[in-house]
Amino acid sequence: MELLSALRVVEGSAFVAAPLGGLTLAQLGADVIRFDTIGGGLDYKRWPVTDDGVSLYWAGLNKGKRSIAIDLARPEGRELATELITAPGDNAGVFLSNFPESGWLADARLRARRPDLVYVNIVGNPDESTAVDYTVNAASGIANATGPVGSLFPVNNALPAWDIATGLNAVIGVLAAERKRNTTGEGQLVKISLADVAFTMVANLGFLAQAEVQHENRPPLGNDMYGAFGRDFATSDSRRVMVVAISLNQWRTLVKATGIEEHLPAMERAFDADFTKEADRYGARDGIAALLKPWFETRTLDEVRRALDAHGVCWGPYQTFTQLLDDDWRVAPTSPVFGDVDHPGIGTLRTPASPMKFPTEPPIAPVSAPLLGMHTDDVLADVLDLSPAEIGKLHDDGVVASAVEL
Amino acid sequence: MELLSALRVVEGSAFVAAPLGGLTLAQLGADVIRFDTIGGGLDYKRWPVTDDGVSLYWAGLNKGKRSIAIDLARPEGRELATELITAPGDNAGVFLSNFPESGWLADARLRARRPDLVYVNIVGNPDESTAVDYTVNAASGIANATGPVGSLFPVNNALPAWDIATGLNAVIGVLAAERKRNTTGEGQLVKISLADVAFTMVANLGFLAQAEVQHENRPPLGNDMYGAFGRDFATSDSRRVMVVAISLNQWRTLVKATGIEEHLPAMERAFDADFTKEADRYGARDGIAALLKPWFETRTLDEVRRALDAHGVCWGPYQTFTQLLDDDWRVAPTSPVFGDVDHPGIGTLRTPASPMKFPTEPPIAPVSAPLLGMHTDDVLADVLDLSPAEIGKLHDDGVVASAVEL
Repeated sequence: MELLSALRVVEGSAFVAAPLGGLTLAQLGADVIRFDTIGGGLDYKRWPVTDDGVSLYWAGLNKGKRSIAIDLARPEGRELATELITAPGDNAGVFLSNFPESGWLADARLRARRPDLVYVNIVGNPDESTAVDYTVNAASGIANATGPVGSLFPVNNALPAWDIATGLNAVIGVLAAERKRNTTGEGQLVKISLADVAFTMVANLGFLAQAEVQHENRPPLGNDMYGAFGRDFATSDSRRVMVVAISLNQWRTLVKATGIEEHLPAMERAFDADFTKEADRYGARDGIAALLKPWFETRTLDEVRRALDAHGVCWGPYQTFTQLLDDDWRVAPTSPVFGDVDHPGIGTLRTPASPMKFPTEPPIAPVSAPLLGMHTDDVLADVLDLSPAEIGKLHDDGVVASAVEL
Repeated sequence: MELLSALRVVEGSAFVAAPLGGLTLAQLGADVIRFDTIGGGLDYKRWPVTDDGVSLYWAGLNKGKRSIAIDLARPEGRELATELITAPGDNAGVFLSNFPESGWLADARLRARRPDLVYVNIVGNPDESTAVDYTVNAASGIANATGPVGSLFPVNNALPAWDIATGLNAVIGVLAAERKRNTTGEGQLVKISLADVAFTMVANLGFLAQAEVQHENRPPLGNDMYGAFGRDFATSDSRRVMVVAISLNQWRTLVKATGIEEHLPAMERAFDADFTKEADRYGARDGIAALLKPWFETRTLDEVRRALDAHGVCWGPYQTFTQLLDDDWRVAPTSPVFGDVDHPGIGTLRTPASPMKFPTEPPIAPVSAPLLGMHTDDVLADVLDLSPAEIGKLHDDGVVASAVEL
C-alpha cells in the first residue's frame, strides 16, 4: 500500500534535511528522483564510510530513490535538470532542494517553465546565509540546557535534531502545497529555514516563554526530566536505565514495582510534598531517587526488566548502537519495519522502511539506496521521453553518466 | 495564504507529539479542533508554568486550535467526541490522536461511523506498550554518543527530538492519507510508533550501519562534529561559539578569517594529512583546533562575529534562551515568523507562526492558544449543527463546559 505512489518529486540536495525529506516521500511510495553532479555531490563521501570509502550515511538517506548523474557545471546539464524539475504531468512538478534558490535554480526561472511548480527550498538562516544544525543548536539555547547539573559548558547532541525537523517540515511543505495545487491549480514556493524551524520549536515547547515570563533559563538537569519524575539509574551489572513517571498511573506502577511505598509518607513530610502531584514529585526528585537507587544497584538489567515490565513501568535501558542492533526486538529483522537488505558496494545492512504503518495493508519492505547514476537512462527515457540515440549522445558528450559499480 | 484552510482535523491528545502535529496543521491554516476532558487532560498543567499555574508548555503547543471541553468519562461525552471525529464533510473526517486506539476510540468503532476516516494514531512502542521520548532516546544509542570525550555516562538531550520527529511524521501521515482519500475515496488507519521513528532515523543517519559494518559505536565527541571539522571555542569575554567547516569552501573561509594559513603546511606534515580533504581535517581536528584556539581566546564575541561574518564563515554563538530572546534578530518581533502576542492568562509572549514561508504571499501572523473550552459552543453549533437549546442542555447536564477565565 503506497499512499504516494502517483507522486513524482525531483530532489536536488546534499547533507541531511533535504535528502531525509526525499527519503520520507520515497518510503511512502513517491517516485523520488535525486539528481547529482557526476561523481556525486558534497555529501557523497560523508562519514561514516566503509573500508572502501562507501558512505553509509549516503546509503541511509537515499534509500528507494532513483539516481541520475548529470554534469551540473555545464549549461546542457543544467538544462537537463531543469527539464526534469519542470516536466509536465499532474502528479509531477514538485522540486525539493537545499541548493541556493538562485541562478538556474531561481524560482522565477523554473516557474517560467512550469507555472504550477511546487518548489520547497530549504535554507540555513532566514536571510539565506549559511547555518547548519550545529550552529543553530548552539544558538537555540538547548545546548546550554543539556549536560550535568551545574555544568558551565554547553553540550551538543549527537543527533542532528534540527536537520530532522527541517526535512520532515519540507515533506509537510510538499504535501500541503501540492494539496492546494490539486484544488486551485496554483503552484507555490515554500521556503523553510533551519533556524526558523529550531527557534519556532524552542518557542512551541515553552523554553522561550519560560525565559521571558519566569526570567529563568532552564538549567542543565543531568539526565533528569524537567517538570516530572524521570531519572537514570545504574544496575548491578554496570548498565544504566532511564525511568520515567509522568502520569499518576506511571508513578504508582514505579512505586509498586520497586517497593518504596512504605517510605513515601515520611519522604512527603520531609519535602512538604504531595506525591500525587507531578510538580511535587519533580521538586522532591532527589529524595525519591535516593530511595530508588539501591533497588536498581542490587539488580541486574534482566532483573530490572522483569520487575518493571511486570508492573508496566515506563522505562528503558541505555544502549549503544551495537546493543540496539543486537538486543532490541524493535529493530530485529522480524519487526515489520526493519529487514536485512543488501546494499550495493556495502553488503547486508539492517534497514528500515517508513516508520508509518498501515495495519490493514501489507507492509512496505525496506530497500537500499541506488548507486549514483543507476537510473540515469531510465529517468531520461521515462520522464523526458528521450530516445536511446539521444541518451547515447548525452553520454558521449559527458553530460550524463551511468552508475559505476562500487 | 493558508495552504490547508479547507481541512478540518480533530485532535485527541496530550504531551508533545500529537499536539505538535495539530499545531503544525493549524499554523498552515487547518481548522484543528482539540477536545479535552473538562478541567483539561494530562498535559494541561505541565511545566513550565506561570506563578498562577498556567502552563506555558500547553500554551505553546496548542496555538491556533479550537478547544472544546467534554466530560469524556461519560458515555454522552464520548458520543459527542465520536460525532465530532466522524462528522461528515469532504475536508473533514481526520483524527489525530495519541490516546489508546481501543474502546470507544478503536478504529473499527470510529470507521463504522465514517468509513473513509483518516485516523493517525501515535503509540509508544510498536506493540503499543508505553514509551516516551526519554526512554526511546536512551535505547536509541544517541545518549551514549553524546557528551564529553571519554565519558562513560549517557547524556540526555534537553530537546525531545523524538517527540518532535513523531509529531511531524503524524502530519505527514495525515496529509499523505488524505491525499490518497481525495483520489480513491478510501480512508486509512496510520500507526506511528515513537520507537519506530527513533530507530528508523538512527538507521537512516548511518549510526546503526556504522555499528553493523564497522563494528564501531560512535563515541561521545564532546562538542565536535563527526566526520568533518566542527568545534566550540571560548572567547575573551567568556562566551562560546560553535565553528563548522564541512565543505572545502567553508574550510577556506575559516582559514582566511582566522589567519592560520601559514601554519597549515607544517600541520599537514605533522598529521600526514591533506587539509583539502574533509576526512583529513576531521582526523587532525585537535591540531587544527590548537591553532584556532588562541585566535578566539583573544577576541570578544563581537570581534569574533565581525571577523567571521566578514568572511562568510559558518559559525554560531552558544546562547541561553534569554540571549536568544534578547539578542538574536532571527526571533525578534520584526522577523516575519515571530511576533509579540497576548496569551490569555499569561500576558505577552514572543510567539512563532509556522516556520514555513511563502514569499509570494502575505505572512501568516502568530496567534495564541485558546483557553480550554473556549470554542465549545462554536464547535457544537458549526460542526454538529446543534441548536442553542441542545447546547444549553449539554451544559446543564455537565457533558460540556465553556472556558473559565484564567
